[in-house]
Amino acid sequence: MDAAKAFGIVVRRLRKEAGLSQELLAEKAYLRRTYISILELGDQQPSLSTIIKVAEGLSMPAHELIAQVEVMISSE
Amino acid sequence: MDAAKAFGIVVRRLRKEAGLSQELLAEKAYLRRTYISILELGDQQPSLSTIIKVAEGLSMPAHELIAQVEVMISSE
Repeated sequence: MDAAKAFGIVVRRLRKEAGLSQELLAEKAYLRRTYISILELGDQQPSLSTIIKVAEGLSMPAHELIAQVEVMISSE
Repeated sequence: MDAAKAFGIVVRRLRKEAGLSQELLAEKAYLRRTYISILELGDQQPSLSTIIKVAEGLSMPAHELIAQVEVMISSE
């Protein structure tokens, strides 16, 4: 699976598990809600700094987020 | 520390520990040598797909690479 698609699927799942709306995650991650939407759809490769911000918004270390993305990529 | 700078420092250290030249890492990661140089200097934010390629070139999972970058970021 494409890395950006996998990232989006994982972020959406973790966001919902955390009970956050896109608006709330955006606020916690210091990103725009529309950008969270683009990322969740896998329409754009996140940069390292975006990955770190999203992880902070999800209250987890970036490497744990990436570990879940790797599982998703290799699950096909 | 800026995430791109931290990434560059960590990649350069891991590349040298692996005994790889920039040319060899570039070949293993399917990236250009000049791009490896830019990344090691911290002059550009790597995207998720680049992070994954570099990690593959270093024969390690991307989340382990990111874990070391997080240590570097928080070491200041």
